[in-house]
Order: sequence, then C-alpha cells, then structure tokens
Amino acid sequence: MLTVALPKGELLKNSIRLLQSVGLDFSAFLDSTNRQLQITDASGQAKGLLVRGQDVPVYVEYGQAQLGIIGYDVLREKKPQVAHLVDLQFGYCRMSVAVKASSAYKSPLDLPAHGRVASKYVNCAREYFHSLDLPVEIVPLYGSVELGPITGMSEAIVDLVSTGRTLRENGLIEITTLYESTARLIAHPLSYRLNMGNLSDLIEKLRKTVLIPI
Amino acid sequence: MLTVALPKGELLKNSIRLLQSVGLDFSAFLDSTNRQLQITDASGQAKGLLVRGQDVPVYVEYGQAQLGIIGYDVLREKKPQVAHLVDLQFGYCRMSVAVKASSAYKSPLDLPAHGRVASKYVNCAREYFHSLDLPVEIVPLYGSVELGPITGMSEAIVDLVSTGRTLRENGLIEITTLYESTARLIAHPLSYRLNMGNLSDLIEKLRKTVLIPI
Repeated sequence: MLTVALPKGELLKNSIRLLQSVGLDFSAFLDSTNRQLQITDASGQAKGLLVRGQDVPVYVEYGQAQLGIIGYDVLREKKPQVAHLVDLQFGYCRMSVAVKASSAYKSPLDLPAHGRVASKYVNCAREYFHSLDLPVEIVPLYGSVELGPITGMSEAIVDLVSTGRTLRENGLIEITTLYESTARLIAHPLSYRLNMGNLSDLIEKLRKTVLIPI
Repeated sequence: MLTVALPKGELLKNSIRLLQSVGLDFSAFLDSTNRQLQITDASGQAKGLLVRGQDVPVYVEYGQAQLGIIGYDVLREKKPQVAHLVDLQFGYCRMSVAVKASSAYKSPLDLPAHGRVASKYVNCAREYFHSLDLPVEIVPLYGSVELGPITGMSEAIVDLVSTGRTLRENGLIEITTLYESTARLIAHPLSYRLNMGNLSDLIEKLRKTVLIPI
C-alpha cells in the first residue's frame, strides 16, 4: 500500500483537499481530537503519515513514504534526495531578508561585513550571502527570528514571509527576496522509477488536478 | 539592565516561580493572552526574553541575555559557549534509547550494526553509539520521533523521556538511559566574569533558593 507523508501546519488543509480530489481521504487528520499520526484512507488505497514539515522529506527519502507534500523552502534548505514532481501552487510564501524599519540598510549589500544574520534557514542564508560575496555570521535560531534585530543580536534576518504581518508587528521590513516558495509533491526516487503501486497513475491525476484553476 | 532568557514550554512555569522567589516577576509570560516576547519585571530590575528552549543558549552565548534557564539536554546537544552555574533541580527527564516493545533488542548492543536510530538529538545519539563502537545511521527528525520504529524507518530512537507515556502509547520501551537532565542556570561568560549588573548577587540568591527544599 502506498504511503503519503503530510506536513502538520499551514499546508495540511490544502494537502488533504488535493488528495481528496483524487479519491484519497485523509480528512481525519483535520479533526482536532485526532491523536493518530498514521491512518488508512477510507477507500483502503493508501496510508497517510502526519509529520512535522521538515520530517516529510526524511520519510520520503528513506522510502517509508512513497509520496510527500512539502514546501519548497524545506527542499531548498535540507536538499533531501527525493524526486521533485509537481508544483502544487498553494502555500505561497517567500524567503526574505528583513531588517529593522528604522535601520539605514536598504539592500543586503548595505549590511556591514561580518555582521550577524539570524535565521531558521541557515543553509539558505549562508548560500545567499556567499553568492553576494558578503561575509556574515549566521546565527541559528529555532523560533521568533524577529527577536534577532529587536534585541540587537543580529542586523538582519532571513525568514519565510507570507502575509508580512509578523514583520510589521515587530517593526521590520523586507529588503530583498531570496526565492518564492509553494507546496511541492515529492516522491521516493526508487519507488517512482519502479512505479511502485502504480504511483505514476496517482501522480498524473494530481498533476491534472493542479492544472485545473479552481 | 540584566536580561534573562526564559524557555517556552515545560520549564517556563518553574523558571518564573524561581525568579519570583528572588524578586523578579515575569509572570506576565504565563498569561495566555500575552503576545510579548520581551517584558521588564515589575520592579524594573531586569528584562525577560521568552524564546524557544533551543534558542536560550544562543541569546546567552551572544550576550543578548546575561542569564538563561534551559534543560541540560539542550546544553549536551548544542554545546554552547556559556557558563554552567546551577542545577535548578526541576524539569527532570532522561535521554533514553527506546525500541519497539515487541522487538528482540534488550540492550543497545543488540542493535544491528549499520541499523538506524531516529532522533531530534543527533549529536547526543551519535556520541553515544560512537562510545559503544557501534556504527549506526542517525536519522534526524524534528518531531514525533516515536514514528521511526513504528513505520519501520529506524530500529531505535534516542529521545527525551519524562513520564514515559508517549513511549507506552506507541508500544515502545526504554532499553537504556544516556543521561539525566534537569533545568540549569547558565550565564554569558564575559558578563559573569565582569559581574555585570551585580550578576553574582542574583546568582547567589538563586543558588540559595534552589538549596531550600520546597
């Protein structure tokens, strides 16, 4: 039986809706009283695995799930060995550099050399500043990255922005965007190549569903 | 003014109670409607910073907070350059190796060479199996580590256990303990050495409070 890894959080609702449209019902995961992390869809065709976003590519990479849905930002940051299949076109957000609105920095190149940049996305941040040839110190944080500039620990942050509300509330502004992100369908490379459980059929159906404008 | 970094989650309530006992009131952080991550205590003596557990040592290491409270597990895993001051004796838990109760593994040495161990504490896990001279592959996960053995992705997990309820509910049992953990008071090394804002006085008071059995 196929297993699909689904991400907790922002992308879950749309992921479940998409799978429903191709006949796989994992809506039990949306029930707030649900404590199960593994369920079989009503039609008995597939299993759903509910995990942290960053863990989705891990389960897919190890073949514990043949398919997964995850934000492009996680794929960019972790570079897991999975097949990138379809841009699912929901979950839009962008990876941005932000600074204090009151600061004099209008562009990343205005940042002082050897300044500090706080981020949960240390690899993305490091790569970006490396591409600018601007040496900065990346400060790894796990939450509330906006506290970096507020407390004075860092000059800037690299973080995922969707509505921009958190930035505004904390007096920060975006000065550039590294890349844009949406939800992606990924697969375990070997399962995909061997067309395990007629995977290609399901992928084709998902691809068609995404192409139909809602 | 001194800044104290406090960890969100399990350790917060006791951390705030401890600081109250030495005259610093950050109980506003416990108000469920509070959205502020930085507050000044009622007496105006110190600022409190509410951050993710793993971020506490970061703020302390960079000197953005002179003091912090955090679990020993985080110090073991991240090895931040902070001064370890006082064992605060609350927040007891242990770092354990657990396997499926139905498995044949009774000790870590029973695990197959090159088997897989899932963990959020990849450094602790790697060091432990290295000390056993047992080569295993560490699978980094961010949440619900118990899914590792359940899905068959890993033979074992290394995870923090407090009551053991999550393990029991998922049919897992502990086979060994790597170390025990409690909350610790940490300080920014330079601020501590320079006795910034009469830090040593506050630390002494906290040390005495901890020694009095409640």
